[in-house]
Amino acid sequence: MKPSSASAQANPNIAFIKYWGNQSQELRIPVNGSISMNMAGLETVTSVIFDDAISGDTLSINGKMVEGKGLERVSSILEIGRRAAGIHSYAQVMSTNNFPTGAGIASSAAAFAALAKATVSALGLPWDEPAISRLARMGSGSASRSVPGGFVEWYVGESDESSYAETIAPAEHWALADCVAIVSASHKKTGSTEGHALAPTSPLQGARVADTPRRLELCRNAIRARDMRALAEVIELDSNIMHAVMMTSSPALFYWQPETLAVMAAVREWREDGLLAGYTIDAGANVHVICEQTSAAEVQTRLRNVPGVQRVLMSSAGGGAKLV
Amino acid sequence: MKPSSASAQANPNIAFIKYWGNQSQELRIPVNGSISMNMAGLETVTSVIFDDAISGDTLSINGKMVEGKGLERVSSILEIGRRAAGIHSYAQVMSTNNFPTGAGIASSAAAFAALAKATVSALGLPWDEPAISRLARMGSGSASRSVPGGFVEWYVGESDESSYAETIAPAEHWALADCVAIVSASHKKTGSTEGHALAPTSPLQGARVADTPRRLELCRNAIRARDMRALAEVIELDSNIMHAVMMTSSPALFYWQPETLAVMAAVREWREDGLLAGYTIDAGANVHVICEQTSAAEVQTRLRNVPGVQRVLMSSAGGGAKLV
Repeated sequence: MKPSSASAQANPNIAFIKYWGNQSQELRIPVNGSISMNMAGLETVTSVIFDDAISGDTLSINGKMVEGKGLERVSSILEIGRRAAGIHSYAQVMSTNNFPTGAGIASSAAAFAALAKATVSALGLPWDEPAISRLARMGSGSASRSVPGGFVEWYVGESDESSYAETIAPAEHWALADCVAIVSASHKKTGSTEGHALAPTSPLQGARVADTPRRLELCRNAIRARDMRALAEVIELDSNIMHAVMMTSSPALFYWQPETLAVMAAVREWREDGLLAGYTIDAGANVHVICEQTSAAEVQTRLRNVPGVQRVLMSSAGGGAKLV
Repeated sequence: MKPSSASAQANPNIAFIKYWGNQSQELRIPVNGSISMNMAGLETVTSVIFDDAISGDTLSINGKMVEGKGLERVSSILEIGRRAAGIHSYAQVMSTNNFPTGAGIASSAAAFAALAKATVSALGLPWDEPAISRLARMGSGSASRSVPGGFVEWYVGESDESSYAETIAPAEHWALADCVAIVSASHKKTGSTEGHALAPTSPLQGARVADTPRRLELCRNAIRARDMRALAEVIELDSNIMHAVMMTSSPALFYWQPETLAVMAAVREWREDGLLAGYTIDAGANVHVICEQTSAAEVQTRLRNVPGVQRVLMSSAGGGAKLV
């Protein structure tokens, strides 16, 4: 066949109800459903070129060639596409982020969502959005949520077929901001893939999973009703619950740094004083502070004044993966 | 009757396996068993004088008269003694601590252990140690553990009769040190009594309680075998689990301050580098770092160098409540 290519763009997403732990580590089928918001303005663009003339898959990220595990993970996604399309050509994959990889914003969700979207298009596969979300999921669980746009729920599912994400409200539904307090740009000691594997070692993980349907409903309802106080309360609870599991696994995983705790305390105090915002923290030290756009400038100013906050990255509800 | 008096001394204790949540809030019967070490050198001395000539119970702490809830709590203990002895005399209670009340070391355990011991003696009641432990428990749950000496287990029990503490190893069994990193001398926002009442609101409390027998056994075994690494691991896990429940209750209780987290991280790093120590944190911000006496000077020096540590209070395994 002659070379065939496609390019796609996707955003990272911030989880309001977190994903932590897998039913199937290999297929990245989670133990609980999750809800997130895509982060507008932060973008990964990935191009995929299938070409008979090359002798193996290649990967470049921000212009640097990547081999080893990073390349293997990408190849496994390409391979699923190749099998479905019945071809054997290898591919060149080129990915660039417009946000610094070292800023503590997980880039894998955006990267695998863009890769899945571009791969399916380059191969001319007639796949719908859930199928592309499932493909992205195989590369990075949370990437499944960066395929649909706006506010997204990833259904826990029982199998590869039923574990995908879809939009529960479009980005326009609610003008929310994500003000990310960057307190550390250092790489996490324990990556998410290894972290998910440790989740069952916490005596609290079972209780966390069992309680998730309740939190998912609180979060869905808060989004539907555009109820900022209810959203703030449930995202903080959910974030605290995930970190509780992390801190009580064996070995214990501590992602919070002293500055993380200072920002969390500040946000709770601001809310008591009437500034409606809530925090949520992924598997890292930075604090995502969610508020309505009308409060975003005030939140940004206050965050900058919290000792230990290096800078504040601003985002808002964004769209899904799309061809570019 | 003519005035009758007694004075008793007791130490605070540091819990290795924590008490958090009650089966009966009124009787302070806990939902799980706990294990602690008495803290030598920190002392509360309490004198009780039953006297027909006074018209109500009085309480002074460090020379200052106390009324309201503090006095009521003491009166309820005196009343149990009066009923058992068949008398109606009121009592003067005078209590002094040799450690600052505002230092973040809970004084209620030592205070109610000393009060129970002195009350029983002043009234001439023929009560054994478990009965005195139960009386102390009615004033402050953890006070039950400051009645017996050394390393102590408080049995969860199913009733007032069966919920008491006893020595599982004497203080001489293992030369342990408790190096308390004082990061805050401020009073806690939410006291333990209110905190215990919030425990059931955490979705993680059930799992914490269900897992406690396992942690109790790990802790008992570590003490029996004088296995410092095993002790460090189980006390950190247990402390993390209790704070996980606190942070996920409604409202969320955060006792950790940024400096608390910094000390925790330092202790874990030191252990990786071969300095055997483990942390545990009560319902406050200060960090108790447990190690063998042979490492205590090194731990103290290192703690003083952690930014945010105001001072380091040193203690070791201490005895039980005794008459003075």
